Amino acid sequence: MKTMISSIITLLGTLSLLICLCHATVLKDFCVADYKAPQHAGGYSCKDPENVKADDFVFSGLATAGNTSNLFKGAFTSAFSNEFPGVNGLGVSLSRGDFAPGGVIAMHSHPGVTELILVAKGTLTAGFITSVTSANKVYVKTLKEGDVIAIPQGLLHFGVNTGSSDALVYAAFSDENPAIQVLDLALFGNNLATDLISDTTFLDPEVIKKLKGVFGGSG
Amino acid sequence: MKTMISSIITLLGTLSLLICLCHATVLKDFCVADYKAPQHAGGYSCKDPENVKADDFVFSGLATAGNTSNLFKGAFTSAFSNEFPGVNGLGVSLSRGDFAPGGVIAMHSHPGVTELILVAKGTLTAGFITSVTSANKVYVKTLKEGDVIAIPQGLLHFGVNTGSSDALVYAAFSDENPAIQVLDLALFGNNLATDLISDTTFLDPEVIKKLKGVFGGSG
Amino acid sequence: MKTMISSIITLLGTLSLLICLCHATVLKDFCVADYKAPQHAGGYSCKDPENVKADDFVFSGLATAGNTSNLFKGAFTSAFSNEFPGVNGLGVSLSRGDFAPGGVIAMHSHPGVTELILVAKGTLTAGFITSVTSANKVYVKTLKEGDVIAIPQGLLHFGVNTGSSDALVYAAFSDENPAIQVLDLALFGNNLATDLISDTTFLDPEVIKKLKGVFGGSG
Amino acid sequence: MKTMISSIITLLGTLSLLICLCHATVLKDFCVADYKAPQHAGGYSCKDPENVKADDFVFSGLATAGNTSNLFKGAFTSAFSNEFPGVNGLGVSLSRGDFAPGGVIAMHSHPGVTELILVAKGTLTAGFITSVTSANKVYVKTLKEGDVIAIPQGLLHFGVNTGSSDALVYAAFSDENPAIQVLDLALFGNNLATDLISDTTFLDPEVIKKLKGVFGGSG
Amino acid sequence: MKTMISSIITLLGTLSLLICLCHATVLKDFCVADYKAPQHAGGYSCKDPENVKADDFVFSGLATAGNTSNLFKGAFTSAFSNEFPGVNGLGVSLSRGDFAPGGVIAMHSHPGVTELILVAKGTLTAGFITSVTSANKVYVKTLKEGDVIAIPQGLLHFGVNTGSSDALVYAAFSDENPAIQVLDLALFGNNLATDLISDTTFLDPEVIKKLKGVFGGSG
Amino acid sequence: MKTMISSIITLLGTLSLLICLCHATVLKDFCVADYKAPQHAGGYSCKDPENVKADDFVFSGLATAGNTSNLFKGAFTSAFSNEFPGVNGLGVSLSRGDFAPGGVIAMHSHPGVTELILVAKGTLTAGFITSVTSANKVYVKTLKEGDVIAIPQGLLHFGVNTGSSDALVYAAFSDENPAIQVLDLALFGNNLATDLISDTTFLDPEVIKKLKGVFGGSG
Repeated sequence: MKTMISSIITLLGTLSLLICLCHATVLKDFCVADYKAPQHAGGYSCKDPENVKADDFVFSGLATAGNTSNLFKGAFTSAFSNEFPGVNGLGVSLSRGDFAPGGVIAMHSHPGVTELILVAKGTLTAGFITSVTSANKVYVKTLKEGDVIAIPQGLLHFGVNTGSSDALVYAAFSDENPAIQVLDLALFGNNLATDLISDTTFLDPEVIKKLKGVFGGSG
Repeated sequence: MKTMISSIITLLGTLSLLICLCHATVLKDFCVADYKAPQHAGGYSCKDPENVKADDFVFSGLATAGNTSNLFKGAFTSAFSNEFPGVNGLGVSLSRGDFAPGGVIAMHSHPGVTELILVAKGTLTAGFITSVTSANKVYVKTLKEGDVIAIPQGLLHFGVNTGSSDALVYAAFSDENPAIQVLDLALFGNNLATDLISDTTFLDPEVIKKLKGVFGGSG
Repeated sequence: MKTMISSIITLLGTLSLLICLCHATVLKDFCVADYKAPQHAGGYSCKDPENVKADDFVFSGLATAGNTSNLFKGAFTSAFSNEFPGVNGLGVSLSRGDFAPGGVIAMHSHPGVTELILVAKGTLTAGFITSVTSANKVYVKTLKEGDVIAIPQGLLHFGVNTGSSDALVYAAFSDENPAIQVLDLALFGNNLATDLISDTTFLDPEVIKKLKGVFGGSG
Repeated sequence: MKTMISSIITLLGTLSLLICLCHATVLKDFCVADYKAPQHAGGYSCKDPENVKADDFVFSGLATAGNTSNLFKGAFTSAFSNEFPGVNGLGVSLSRGDFAPGGVIAMHSHPGVTELILVAKGTLTAGFITSVTSANKVYVKTLKEGDVIAIPQGLLHFGVNTGSSDALVYAAFSDENPAIQVLDLALFGNNLATDLISDTTFLDPEVIKKLKGVFGGSG
Repeated sequence: MKTMISSIITLLGTLSLLICLCHATVLKDFCVADYKAPQHAGGYSCKDPENVKADDFVFSGLATAGNTSNLFKGAFTSAFSNEFPGVNGLGVSLSRGDFAPGGVIAMHSHPGVTELILVAKGTLTAGFITSVTSANKVYVKTLKEGDVIAIPQGLLHFGVNTGSSDALVYAAFSDENPAIQVLDLALFGNNLATDLISDTTFLDPEVIKKLKGVFGGSG
Repeated sequence: MKTMISSIITLLGTLSLLICLCHATVLKDFCVADYKAPQHAGGYSCKDPENVKADDFVFSGLATAGNTSNLFKGAFTSAFSNEFPGVNGLGVSLSRGDFAPGGVIAMHSHPGVTELILVAKGTLTAGFITSVTSANKVYVKTLKEGDVIAIPQGLLHFGVNTGSSDALVYAAFSDENPAIQVLDLALFGNNLATDLISDTTFLDPEVIKKLKGVFGGSG
């Protein structure tokens, strides 16, 4: 027994020898977002690990269904590094989507990020469009409960709740903070000049102006 | 109208000018796994895009609950690049876990891969253990329906269905083909010599032999 | 002198000692594309270095202006790994764009790839649109000869030759084989069902059908 | 019409639901360099997006030819993240080179960075030297207007204006801030001891001292 | 001679033309750790290069053998970015291990990091255990002086000095700051509840409590 | 006991449920080099894991000192993926260097790779030269036994055994197959035309020709 106790005492010495923890707050295992420090291209700076709590790694925002009383009859709720500090630096994130019958995932893309969409409840007709390099080919399918669809990075994709009940989907992303470029908001939700849009999309100016009315654009 | 038609004709010429598709099967948008070609450190070689179908991007294997009549009272079902060809090269994947009351996510790690676990149904007490660098600190929490927990890369983590009903979880990974190192299978599920295990884990040989009996190990 | 000669002889022995070239065709410095071997998510397999010539690293296709007699009054010519084998694995590529007065760079994006556009001759009004995360903000400017504009990854961008003479631009990409998703071709240049487009873009079916006529789409 | 207006109103609610912008200045689309914040191995910290202007993404410094009245009869002008804030984080950059007849691109390398050189005007004899692993093989070619040469990462390369008129080249790099190690400046432009240079390059001390005189070295 | 002098003068002008050093302290070649600035997922911020000295790139801590009078009869000493500022950002690091006869490298893993172990003196029986994906297969071998063993990322590995004299090993890592998860410290060196450990490892609570006594755990 | 046995039987079923090993030879943990399959920019293709043995992960070539009877009075021996199949894909490698008194590590660089040099025996004066971006500054130091020096990626570096006895060094690299560009072999060990070398290095043609005699160059 004495040997064991002396072993423990020796061990305490050993552990500090094993690794020199020369600095107060060494971090390596994780990098919980410090929303007040400078950001860089890779994400947020790290919070002092002394102040990290289990709650930083847990996010409850996906528990509640989004409000679908809107133009899209749907809504996405995100667990990205902007609202979920523990996911900073992890290179993966989640969101949930709720869609009433006829609800849509508006045509959009995620710059540099891939996505998997899992249909947890209901039916979703979803697909993506390839680039010119792949001849603009479309891959689309009606997904049943439990089905997963893979969306390659940066390509336009979309979905429609083609079922008769509400649909619930979970989306997993290859990035902790995926950007979302929604086509209608990009074209019609800002002050980009109508003639520049028209010249480069071949949409008629009247079509553009009408949709600017819907999506809040000007110019 | 004539102008438009000639525009279309000119366009066909233009499009082929826009990008020189010099090779029969150029790929860039995706790399659906070709299970028969050589593999490399980054994953599978790509299937000829001519043979890619929408079904390659859709996986239905997560629709069915796993069988929980086993030692763990639980089971994981995966949508990784090994069984879901369209996810190859995407850097993200999903699995589902089903757990009877008292069922466990056995202590394990994913080399080089981070994970988010979403509790879709039920209650899960889950957590992870940090490295020596972070003083072996433990972050653990009981998650309710809709909660997400983040697991940093490569660290031991675990879970127990501490609720009174079945639990369903979805896990998202920062890799299309995460490896899983289950502690008990690593220590007791192979032919690693009992004395080597004992010397390097400080477990008694009898404890090791008993668990080798459970997990199929020898030596 | 004798010493020098014996040094040379010793040297020949030394050099083979310095590095063990155990395999016939070791490669490391470059990976010239072998268009016939399996492709993978990262690009082409490598040609046997024994067969690599200086010409593999030189591309002359950008010497000639593209034909601008088309709907866009413009054309891009690429030096990507699909046509320039020596650029495989280098993570950078170039293209040239030629535009008659009024010619356009149609609204498009490059999944996962950033771009710099240099105006070598003429005037170009160019810009990009940010994601929802950045409030769909637009950055646009009229560029003079010698100006460079930076386009962040995966975002919609566009250009118009707003000068009175032909414009020549060079574009540099952060990828050896950037994919190009041209909005009009993605929406109206394939067989994606008109109602799916309409539901997810809020464009009227008649607008869609008309543009399908222009860009070769069906369905 | 009423429906549309109420849709718009609902939409405003929806958009804020779509993505939780919990923090004042979320960034993801770009990371314009903040030259005053801490730097890290990957580049500069990001400027607050509120203060980002279109001008941050436009660089005019390549419009003017460099002064070739010098030892090299040539000059490079750069659009790197050090002087072009919008290129920070983009992983690509540009420079222009101007060379009088006989002007030279001095033997140099870019640590960890690949390069494409496009001859916009004139004639350039250019090439690169492989590593010992590739038997020190040389790939060299005389490039005409419009030709592009690819330079693999980190290898010594060089050029000479072998034409009879001025040459203009554009170089694209696989990094937003490529370092440049010019052989003569590395060996003869600092205070590295002459005997250390001599011992490790086999150049005679007199040769070294003479070139230190030219390139400003001491020691 | 006059020509040479004027060349030098011209050269000084040229060099400043060659590269615009617009900011006081541009860094690119290295990123010596600034232990006081914010950290991020990729490592430490960079020290102002003006204050960097040759000593920042040299580490002497591996010169002395570790104290092996402990439970493990061994000790590791590290040259990681936590104690060796010049290695920050380099993606490689070293440590030395000293082991008395019978000394052990306790079962452990390095999240996301690969390792090479070189036996500089003595004899080491070492190996690693693969993941479930590879059927938990074990690769183990007794290494003589001069032998190197490769440990893939994130897998459990171990070693025993099976020789009759002291052993000295050097370990090289694919990361400048590898985390170390030692199995016994992870399971028995913190306050993780005994029943959670027991449920998820199938170890008996008494076994766990005994080892918590040895490794300092509670709960 | 019966329960345990039936548990084991159930377990066998469970394990196959846990992960679907749908393909004969799934690999993820490692990618041992298959020297006969196509190579790609990232390294070798993977050997079928069925044929992988413990010996693939062990390399004995560093056990023997290199022959120092040569011009450099030194020699390097490598454990790179070209000769050590198990290190393929691991992103780290080792070599040993042996140097007689006065022996040199010739001026050289490793494209895109960082290095740590550990002096295991003897004395080494070693250093590196920064890029123009860092004002060509030199960091050099005389290292004693046990000292480690860090060499940032792609920069020229060098060493001299300035002690009175043989020196032994171990070098760790941030790449499994680092290329080595030795300055003298690059300039004088191939058929690069003397005038191109002279024009771009400012070395006199006679100096070049003399060294071509030493290093085996022609032209």
